[in-house]
Amino acid sequence: MGSTFGTLFRLSTWGESHGGGVGVVVDGCPPRLELDESDVQPQLDRRRPGQSVLTTPRQETDTVRILSGTFEGRTLGTPILLAVDNKDARPSAYESFKDVYRPSHADFTYDAKYGIRNWQGGGRASARETVGRVAAGAIAEKILALASGVSIVSYVKRVADTEACIHFKEEGVDGALDPLKLTRRKVDQTPVRCPDLKAAEEMIQVIDEARRDGDSVGGIIETVVRNVPPGLGEPVFDRLEADLAKAMLSLPATKGFEIGSGFEGTRLRGSEHNDPYIRRRGRIGTKTNFSGGVQGGISNGEPIHFRVAFKPTATIRKPQQTVDDTGKRRTLEARGRHDPCVLPRAVPLVEAMTALVLVDHWLRQTSREEAVRRIEGDRA
Amino acid sequence: MGSTFGTLFRLSTWGESHGGGVGVVVDGCPPRLELDESDVQPQLDRRRPGQSVLTTPRQETDTVRILSGTFEGRTLGTPILLAVDNKDARPSAYESFKDVYRPSHADFTYDAKYGIRNWQGGGRASARETVGRVAAGAIAEKILALASGVSIVSYVKRVADTEACIHFKEEGVDGALDPLKLTRRKVDQTPVRCPDLKAAEEMIQVIDEARRDGDSVGGIIETVVRNVPPGLGEPVFDRLEADLAKAMLSLPATKGFEIGSGFEGTRLRGSEHNDPYIRRRGRIGTKTNFSGGVQGGISNGEPIHFRVAFKPTATIRKPQQTVDDTGKRRTLEARGRHDPCVLPRAVPLVEAMTALVLVDHWLRQTSREEAVRRIEGDRA
Amino acid sequence: MGSTFGTLFRLSTWGESHGGGVGVVVDGCPPRLELDESDVQPQLDRRRPGQSVLTTPRQETDTVRILSGTFEGRTLGTPILLAVDNKDARPSAYESFKDVYRPSHADFTYDAKYGIRNWQGGGRASARETVGRVAAGAIAEKILALASGVSIVSYVKRVADTEACIHFKEEGVDGALDPLKLTRRKVDQTPVRCPDLKAAEEMIQVIDEARRDGDSVGGIIETVVRNVPPGLGEPVFDRLEADLAKAMLSLPATKGFEIGSGFEGTRLRGSEHNDPYIRRRGRIGTKTNFSGGVQGGISNGEPIHFRVAFKPTATIRKPQQTVDDTGKRRTLEARGRHDPCVLPRAVPLVEAMTALVLVDHWLRQTSREEAVRRIEGDRA
Amino acid sequence: MGSTFGTLFRLSTWGESHGGGVGVVVDGCPPRLELDESDVQPQLDRRRPGQSVLTTPRQETDTVRILSGTFEGRTLGTPILLAVDNKDARPSAYESFKDVYRPSHADFTYDAKYGIRNWQGGGRASARETVGRVAAGAIAEKILALASGVSIVSYVKRVADTEACIHFKEEGVDGALDPLKLTRRKVDQTPVRCPDLKAAEEMIQVIDEARRDGDSVGGIIETVVRNVPPGLGEPVFDRLEADLAKAMLSLPATKGFEIGSGFEGTRLRGSEHNDPYIRRRGRIGTKTNFSGGVQGGISNGEPIHFRVAFKPTATIRKPQQTVDDTGKRRTLEARGRHDPCVLPRAVPLVEAMTALVLVDHWLRQTSREEAVRRIEGDRA
Repeated sequence: MGSTFGTLFRLSTWGESHGGGVGVVVDGCPPRLELDESDVQPQLDRRRPGQSVLTTPRQETDTVRILSGTFEGRTLGTPILLAVDNKDARPSAYESFKDVYRPSHADFTYDAKYGIRNWQGGGRASARETVGRVAAGAIAEKILALASGVSIVSYVKRVADTEACIHFKEEGVDGALDPLKLTRRKVDQTPVRCPDLKAAEEMIQVIDEARRDGDSVGGIIETVVRNVPPGLGEPVFDRLEADLAKAMLSLPATKGFEIGSGFEGTRLRGSEHNDPYIRRRGRIGTKTNFSGGVQGGISNGEPIHFRVAFKPTATIRKPQQTVDDTGKRRTLEARGRHDPCVLPRAVPLVEAMTALVLVDHWLRQTSREEAVRRIEGDRA
Repeated sequence: MGSTFGTLFRLSTWGESHGGGVGVVVDGCPPRLELDESDVQPQLDRRRPGQSVLTTPRQETDTVRILSGTFEGRTLGTPILLAVDNKDARPSAYESFKDVYRPSHADFTYDAKYGIRNWQGGGRASARETVGRVAAGAIAEKILALASGVSIVSYVKRVADTEACIHFKEEGVDGALDPLKLTRRKVDQTPVRCPDLKAAEEMIQVIDEARRDGDSVGGIIETVVRNVPPGLGEPVFDRLEADLAKAMLSLPATKGFEIGSGFEGTRLRGSEHNDPYIRRRGRIGTKTNFSGGVQGGISNGEPIHFRVAFKPTATIRKPQQTVDDTGKRRTLEARGRHDPCVLPRAVPLVEAMTALVLVDHWLRQTSREEAVRRIEGDRA
Repeated sequence: MGSTFGTLFRLSTWGESHGGGVGVVVDGCPPRLELDESDVQPQLDRRRPGQSVLTTPRQETDTVRILSGTFEGRTLGTPILLAVDNKDARPSAYESFKDVYRPSHADFTYDAKYGIRNWQGGGRASARETVGRVAAGAIAEKILALASGVSIVSYVKRVADTEACIHFKEEGVDGALDPLKLTRRKVDQTPVRCPDLKAAEEMIQVIDEARRDGDSVGGIIETVVRNVPPGLGEPVFDRLEADLAKAMLSLPATKGFEIGSGFEGTRLRGSEHNDPYIRRRGRIGTKTNFSGGVQGGISNGEPIHFRVAFKPTATIRKPQQTVDDTGKRRTLEARGRHDPCVLPRAVPLVEAMTALVLVDHWLRQTSREEAVRRIEGDRA
Repeated sequence: MGSTFGTLFRLSTWGESHGGGVGVVVDGCPPRLELDESDVQPQLDRRRPGQSVLTTPRQETDTVRILSGTFEGRTLGTPILLAVDNKDARPSAYESFKDVYRPSHADFTYDAKYGIRNWQGGGRASARETVGRVAAGAIAEKILALASGVSIVSYVKRVADTEACIHFKEEGVDGALDPLKLTRRKVDQTPVRCPDLKAAEEMIQVIDEARRDGDSVGGIIETVVRNVPPGLGEPVFDRLEADLAKAMLSLPATKGFEIGSGFEGTRLRGSEHNDPYIRRRGRIGTKTNFSGGVQGGISNGEPIHFRVAFKPTATIRKPQQTVDDTGKRRTLEARGRHDPCVLPRAVPLVEAMTALVLVDHWLRQTSREEAVRRIEGDRA
């Protein structure tokens, strides 16, 4: 269980890192949306391995095919199957891990849960599973963009101790980049996907050092969502930030989520932290945005911004002590291909999960008919 | 929508801060569990207002009644209704907020979403809604304790800038309190629910100062869960940490969640952060626990530990600038009763949500029959 | 589990026949609907015991109270708790059934499933559980009526072998009552709730004879729904007729469901059974309605009509052979109060479940905002 | 929405009659079950078109491929993707229906709901969608058989007015075939899948006549399930018969469902209809089985038996009056390939849906671990 996400825009991902392929079924997509593979491929290309020296040399073109749910270039309102073949799978590289538990991987826990696992790569726990999410997320993004002009931009904020100088105005840092002005084009200027070019250069060095040492590093991805209509989110359990938190912590290698002022904001007093309401351009907004665009679990129309912590990649080349499935001590020396830092490739994953949460909540507020009207209207 | 939580142990909370009462329906509780009000009341007493000078003077005894689902002191396996009356509701205190949007409250977003709100208190967005969660959580905790000896302890780790000296061994802090040895009794030694007594004293001062200033403070609650059986959690979306993140971010006033090494762990290299597997007391465990007891979304049998960020309470006595529902500027001076710091009372909330996530995942692994056998066996 | 129904208009019923009370939590009701107890009570009055000589003499006024989810006479969009106290519970009447399995009751199966049961009445399997459904159904009906003028009328079509002469035009029976012209007022002209007065008289005799013999009878209830908007129902599993079938078979004592031409229609050829499309009053309709208003699982705008089979009540006064919970033979002589025929009181149950299915599907097509606009528009 | 079925054994079907293919994702299958394509293909072969003169001449071998979720011939506990290509799709045959609403098909309702439809065949409303259900059902059946020896046999009971002489003992018909002794081998003796050979011969003639007339016929399929463990089914909404009813009415062309004594049983008195409990072979059973194996929504260990009504196929060659999507009158003469009677091919569909309902309820009672133990134990 657990491979399904969403209530009204519902995806079920399938596939292991080494098997026939990976993909997703999307149920609940509004009908009459113009959709073909070219809407989905770009984000898959940003996610795929081998795109730069910073990432695993595994070569997968990850070409997506749509096998159902569209007709003459438009969605039918019925389930959309998106599939990507596994091509560069080299199970032999994993032969030596067959009975060894790699530290901080899911080998032991899958064995504990299922009593069986596909030891050829990470199986279902592999980041390769996220192909389906990115594909579904691209559809979600297209809907949100057409319907409400929603824009989602994620970027690498910190790698190990190297932090980009990107700050919201309420953080009061002079000379910082304004997160509200970033675009994917700016983010993609460097392979590390950090729009602060000076920090990016340093991050690349940090990652490269780790790679040379056979080691890995982690960091933080920040996301900014603009043009979110107010009213998205359901009290009390399905709050928008609760669903975003779940979505982000469901991504491999994540250890934390914070929205708005997050952990640091707990150091402020209420009188500093509260966001005063003001009248702005004919609608009610807030002067500061420590809330991160969500109050009482519901979007207030201000930009949503949050951060996700990614641990250093568990796969490293350095020798490690561990045990095998009988509890016997073993020394592990990984030879498989891997990323010394997952963050650059995780950027489209965070964007995809964000879009999936938002579109689901948007469809709860909006009827299917209205959704279609909005989508088509914008096109006209 | 959104008032239901859980798949196999499913609760639906109901009630507003000012109305007939608040409570919860619990469906999916295993049958034949010994249960009466005395199992639930203690955690409600830890949650209720007016228990110390640190909390709101609203006086509610919050006496719970079980109206269905039990027979001769045992559960029937059918829905359990738990209800608590609203007694000390003073809607008149809120009369002046009727058309004013209190900063960083849910007034504006509820209006944006529903076009109506119960302005007598926070309505559904009020912390009073959590009464039902705490009641359901107490049942979940009883099941987990009987079945597997699971123990959940939460405590206040930080208030504003005052941090308790409580650290896991992998954090390498000499002379710190060991989180794995804490009990609720130790936590409840001070009204602030911080087991580091020196820090607790300072926290109380910080809160009291804020109160005197008509202001508020936030902080961090840490939770440690022991004796979690391995195998809980579902790849890929319903990972244990994803469901915990959602559960915590669904609590009022939360802004962040981190598990294991969390945000700080992103500064480490993989070779430092990976938890080596070892053989310990006849079973496989890990030497360090940066993972926080969860790998690949599934519990590995090590203690689960995580932290939750709570913002400073939005309700303050200090005058604030805001607007009313027509967008007109207004000055707000709150007179309602409120907590200058929600953390002490939020401790049982965090424990309840933790228990609710765990019991749901435990029931997915365990049959109803097996569940009952375990619960009864332990009693024999 | 299993006490929750619906996706976007979701109810969770609670309560046993002998306990603190019975009721329901409704989540997903659109906001700003005018609602108080008087909207719900009339259908509960049609369901309650003791309303005529045909029904059990158990005396319950079944007065409903709304404990949450409304404010100043309108819904808030948050969960609505509706509760009815149990008053005339006489557990002692059931003392002798404590360890005996009543034939065709749920005593044995509840024991097999849970290893415990509330033997004071039917517990959760009692028809008393349906109080919550009828209450929720009344809200659903109000929404459907305001939004689209939907009208739902159920009536007793057959008791044992006595059948009312009520036929759709495609059945080709001269002189029959037209089901499309029936109203609840006409249905309630007799206590048996059959609008064919001649048949009703005979039905009353049949029921009375059964009662005098300490026996019981069953029959068929037919339902007609008018003004259903086209487009309700989801391919492929959540077809409208599939959800109606589930809803009806979830009612106690039901053994069958058929829609449109049903079982008899299987005797026709396709050329007779197909409903030709025609243009009627500016919209596309069908000439005949063997489909019963649903095609491919989706409503086509024609009246929906279906029939539900109710078995003869399991509780009878006549002595019966059975066994106790050790398998020992026992003779059972029921003394509890009971209905010799459940159909008259089941009429509002069928109506309630119909409304609950329809409103849930309507909300999937219609946004919350649109729903409110429609509801309010009609009122203006 | 609506393409997902089940809670713990959850399938999502995808694909249209004319597109890249059809299939299903199955999530929740217990791990370590021996599974390859040969477990699934036989039921697909019984479902596929072109298997006899009674069925459509559309030639599809319907060869299934498993693309994920298994490893070295056993299930992993993760999602299983099963896919079947569309090969003999001839969209041109449907060109003339492009803007015409075929009577009693889903053309009009899909247009009403989505404003778009794949007019090349029935699209998602086509019986071709059931390929995925049959594939998933075969897995469910294997689990049930290994775990509890559950056996499911469906057969054609009636075609138009020709009824097989197959009766349960409580129906009191001398010389009838005993439904409890039927096997799939016996059912498959004739292409019409009626084990009463004399009736089968007549049915074949009836179908052949309809075919020659360019017409179609309907009928009834009966199902018997043996070795069902007691305790399956959830009060109150997820009763076993309610879920079976939904499952059956979700199949194309169905108009009714009845369990046990069904509609005819409503003519009996309670004293005749009640099933007396007896002690039999060391366990408690019932003397008669008018209940059809379910009481209070929960299986009692007796055979489950039910009947499903299938309308005459909507596709006929005879000319029919209808309208196009502008409301203009049109005469329709179908030329596409079709079955004059769907019942023979619907037999494996009914079996599949039955298995899917039962395995889901079985998994609610049984833990994943216990499920695996049972499955593996039986194999040892």
